[in-house]
Amino acid sequence: MESKQLLMEKIRCGEMKSPTSGLASGFTQANLVILKKAFAFDFLLFCQRNPKSCPVLDVTDVGSAFARKFAPGADVRTDIPKYHIYKGGTFVEEVTDITEHWQDDMVAFLLGCSFTFEEALLANGIGIRHNEEGCNVPMYRTNIPTEPAGIFHGPMVVSMRPIAKDQVVRAVQVTSRFPDVHGGPVHIGDPDFIGISNMDEPEYGEAVSIQEGEVPVFWACGVTSQSVALASKPDLMITHAPGHMFITDVKNEMLGIL
Amino acid sequence: MESKQLLMEKIRCGEMKSPTSGLASGFTQANLVILKKAFAFDFLLFCQRNPKSCPVLDVTDVGSAFARKFAPGADVRTDIPKYHIYKGGTFVEEVTDITEHWQDDMVAFLLGCSFTFEEALLANGIGIRHNEEGCNVPMYRTNIPTEPAGIFHGPMVVSMRPIAKDQVVRAVQVTSRFPDVHGGPVHIGDPDFIGISNMDEPEYGEAVSIQEGEVPVFWACGVTSQSVALASKPDLMITHAPGHMFITDVKNEMLGIL
Repeated sequence: MESKQLLMEKIRCGEMKSPTSGLASGFTQANLVILKKAFAFDFLLFCQRNPKSCPVLDVTDVGSAFARKFAPGADVRTDIPKYHIYKGGTFVEEVTDITEHWQDDMVAFLLGCSFTFEEALLANGIGIRHNEEGCNVPMYRTNIPTEPAGIFHGPMVVSMRPIAKDQVVRAVQVTSRFPDVHGGPVHIGDPDFIGISNMDEPEYGEAVSIQEGEVPVFWACGVTSQSVALASKPDLMITHAPGHMFITDVKNEMLGIL
Repeated sequence: MESKQLLMEKIRCGEMKSPTSGLASGFTQANLVILKKAFAFDFLLFCQRNPKSCPVLDVTDVGSAFARKFAPGADVRTDIPKYHIYKGGTFVEEVTDITEHWQDDMVAFLLGCSFTFEEALLANGIGIRHNEEGCNVPMYRTNIPTEPAGIFHGPMVVSMRPIAKDQVVRAVQVTSRFPDVHGGPVHIGDPDFIGISNMDEPEYGEAVSIQEGEVPVFWACGVTSQSVALASKPDLMITHAPGHMFITDVKNEMLGIL
């Protein structure tokens, strides 16, 4: 706990600005999406209708920067290494603190992140290729429609991990235990079937190698929420910077359903 | 399917006004809560924060009476045997059709119902006492606080089923497979511990016998949402009449997480 506390202090004061992958081992990390109250119902409804892409871990009260359930002592305005600010659907600025951008009608949504199920896969002897190759997970836009809600609509974005053929069933079992961090895969094996024509050119992240005896396995990805939200061009939206997650007080294993 | 279709037609035309327990076997039945848009974000957030009591199955678009995911062809204004109408938190009327009460800013929420997990318990050889005794399930107000959201707050209501000591573990396993219909129990064995002082006097439903070698097992109950919503005295709220549920097109087993 000491090291997590120290880490959180360094993030809060702006000293620590790096990606959070592998840090505070065992603690759930979360995606952050901040929108104004006027968009909050539609966004929460979108998440409710698309739980595999957008699993909601916590939602702050309107105007509150505190996530009571997942990190009651943390301030979502300062306790993430880097933020992205979007206006009218366009990226305008990267900052390490959003205190001056905060408004009284804002609502912060914490969504589940695949780091949690990757830790579970590793604990089950299933390697994570993008970690092995030292890059970001490859993410692809698919032809899988999301369920629209109010102003929000668009295709599902998925992340891909190559899995050895004799570990695919176990990978499905392990990740199905964690529906709050995307749960089981949405597809196994055939990129074309879900509208991915070129595995070498992911829309987000970086391509990884798929080796002999492995199949590509696809999980719904939290980037779906950002891509869908930006397409609706809200006047102001704030998110974490990719890979720079919100570290919560909840242990990964607490999200296991059984 | 023929008999379900006939049943739905009888419900729609007002001919069938009885409780739905045991009807359309295998199909998920749902609780209905209709509120105006002004209350919809707070209510959806309350459900998100209290998923054991208020598991959301589907939410209609604002002003739409059609639940696209769970029963796309059914109309929530006509396809339930009986409705209760509440004004300012007070019950005012029981009707078989709410078409004339419908307004363009209404949102209908379908919440999971314990009928689904009771079917799973029965399939596992675990009897349902209130069915055996031909009465409604006993429901009790507890000292377990819900997580408030906006105007909504109040204690959790639970339902109780006596379970034989050698079936308690299996009952936990079976119901944990169905988080969208309240999931695993919230408490096993000690009513006092959760603030229930008199098992003979449930706040809702009817008391049932607890036999030698059985323990009372408590599950979060969807009545929580109604009791919390009514306490906030919305100007207009419409629900199903107790026991007269909305029969959806989704099979119970489809709600199993594994």
